[in-house]
Amino acid sequence: MAPITNARVLFAAVPKDFPIPGETTVHDTSAKIDLETVPLNGGFLIKTLVLSIDPYMRGRMRPAGTKSYSEAFTLGAPIDGYGVCVVLRSENSAVAPGTFVYGTFPHQQYTVLPNPQALTFLEKDPKLPWTVYVGAAGMPGQTAFCGWKEFSHAKKGETAFVTTGAGPVGSMVIQLAKREGLKVIASAGSDEKVEFMKEIGADVAFNYKTTDTRAVLAREGPVDVFWDNVGGDILDAALENTAIHGRHTFNPRPAGYNTGYQGIKNMHEVFARSLTISGILVFRLQYKYAEEFYATIPRALGAGKIKYREDVSRGLETVGDMILRVQEGRNTGKAVVVVSEE
Amino acid sequence: MAPITNARVLFAAVPKDFPIPGETTVHDTSAKIDLETVPLNGGFLIKTLVLSIDPYMRGRMRPAGTKSYSEAFTLGAPIDGYGVCVVLRSENSAVAPGTFVYGTFPHQQYTVLPNPQALTFLEKDPKLPWTVYVGAAGMPGQTAFCGWKEFSHAKKGETAFVTTGAGPVGSMVIQLAKREGLKVIASAGSDEKVEFMKEIGADVAFNYKTTDTRAVLAREGPVDVFWDNVGGDILDAALENTAIHGRHTFNPRPAGYNTGYQGIKNMHEVFARSLTISGILVFRLQYKYAEEFYATIPRALGAGKIKYREDVSRGLETVGDMILRVQEGRNTGKAVVVVSEE
Repeated sequence: MAPITNARVLFAAVPKDFPIPGETTVHDTSAKIDLETVPLNGGFLIKTLVLSIDPYMRGRMRPAGTKSYSEAFTLGAPIDGYGVCVVLRSENSAVAPGTFVYGTFPHQQYTVLPNPQALTFLEKDPKLPWTVYVGAAGMPGQTAFCGWKEFSHAKKGETAFVTTGAGPVGSMVIQLAKREGLKVIASAGSDEKVEFMKEIGADVAFNYKTTDTRAVLAREGPVDVFWDNVGGDILDAALENTAIHGRHTFNPRPAGYNTGYQGIKNMHEVFARSLTISGILVFRLQYKYAEEFYATIPRALGAGKIKYREDVSRGLETVGDMILRVQEGRNTGKAVVVVSEE
Repeated sequence: MAPITNARVLFAAVPKDFPIPGETTVHDTSAKIDLETVPLNGGFLIKTLVLSIDPYMRGRMRPAGTKSYSEAFTLGAPIDGYGVCVVLRSENSAVAPGTFVYGTFPHQQYTVLPNPQALTFLEKDPKLPWTVYVGAAGMPGQTAFCGWKEFSHAKKGETAFVTTGAGPVGSMVIQLAKREGLKVIASAGSDEKVEFMKEIGADVAFNYKTTDTRAVLAREGPVDVFWDNVGGDILDAALENTAIHGRHTFNPRPAGYNTGYQGIKNMHEVFARSLTISGILVFRLQYKYAEEFYATIPRALGAGKIKYREDVSRGLETVGDMILRVQEGRNTGKAVVVVSEE
């Protein structure tokens, strides 16, 4: 069999603010691969099925020297991110051809990996497409699940407040909170998102662009558990309306990657209300809760007991547009690119 | 026996910024009391021995309508605060004359109380004066003890950073951290305080006015456990030098009562480092740890295994000056007013 194109998405330039498709990331078709003869050197060959497009990716589009919690993308090389792949050939007896793996992969059609380190072997729920395994059953779902388990200390009858409640993380948090018997207040930036939040069980859902957050929280609070995907003024509003011994979980959000993070103004409230604020990064917590997560969440998603929304595009060439779409908050569900069918 | 003077300290006016002795608080000698005939109505009569002067008192010197975690002082009435009193007469069989009680009392020489609710009965360690029971063996000591137990999750070999390390709370935190085998970095605002912090065991002690906090933390950190009595820029410096999964305890401090609190600038660090920040107010935690505290800390203080410093004045008429002294940070140890001898 002759070599075929191995399309890739290259990191071509550091964005000034928002990433520009075709400039900061470039779809490249110059590389070739022979699937039958490419040397595996004891490793295995995978085909990329789906790739996750996430807000945090903007943070990796920076010069190589800048330190952060995640590595910078390498200029001239493919970007990488969460995805699901299928094993085509293998020289590792623990990784059989036909196995599906979840983890972090280069944004290209085919990849040879030396070992399965840091990969999760997936069994597909027959009712779910692979796209869900990078969304509600992947990193965003795990962010919500791990953060809720680790930091919420939720008790039945308490009140939760979730910002960006229509997003992949927020919508999972709303549903986890409802399953545990909490009253849920949820905010988002459009009336259509408000409708979705009501559909998935939010008791009080509002559009923060047209409704005064402080008034809602004063009427419906105080808030025992606050899931903060937004920060800035809404964080301050929540601080002012949090119950004594409230728990805040602070989760990265797109805005800050492009325009910087606004700090907490009224730290006074943190001690006056005996609050605890915890920052969450899923990759430091996911292993602790992985078994429980995979044993419960995909099944609940497949059975329709937990709902999700996706915003799916097809073809590796759509990655650049999808990254921008996510950074601008225009996606209407978890952003996923389908690269190949099984 | 004829009525005698029952001197009091009245809340006379709301301070604009710093409290002014004789203006915002007034020493008043107009009230009389007959210790033998004053009606007890089933309660008991106490004589005030010592009164604690604390930073948080400034927060209570506000107009009645302003909400906060503590009640406002009442204009025209005595201020109140932590103290130790001795029971003189009693109509309550659970409160015998000669009993010593710790709790919150009006700033006056004699008081009739209806019941012992919220009071702690004290047994005095023979090596300790009563003043210590409102300091290292009282509220500030309990703040350090409860906060450390509840929030530090300290492990031997970790590094702690304590600000205001020569103060009554900070100095106790330093010693608790050393007892648990941590490396302790401590800061304060004078070379004399730096010496004291070294005496009580701080491994690295520095004057933040003459030494760059960021440089010290970069060299001696990262910080696993941060005890923050200061906030503002030092809090931001600590955030930048905190270990992954670091724990911050945020404790009220004098500056904010007079000039407002500076917020956190770089919330980014909170999730990038997976930090947890907890606000502490001792009155919400002290009952949980009271038994352990009184069983261990006074004995360790009496035996000299935990060290403390006091700044003691004598006479109720010195309360106003002492309050200002504390708000200005001029006190050289835990501020206490001795009102009467046993």
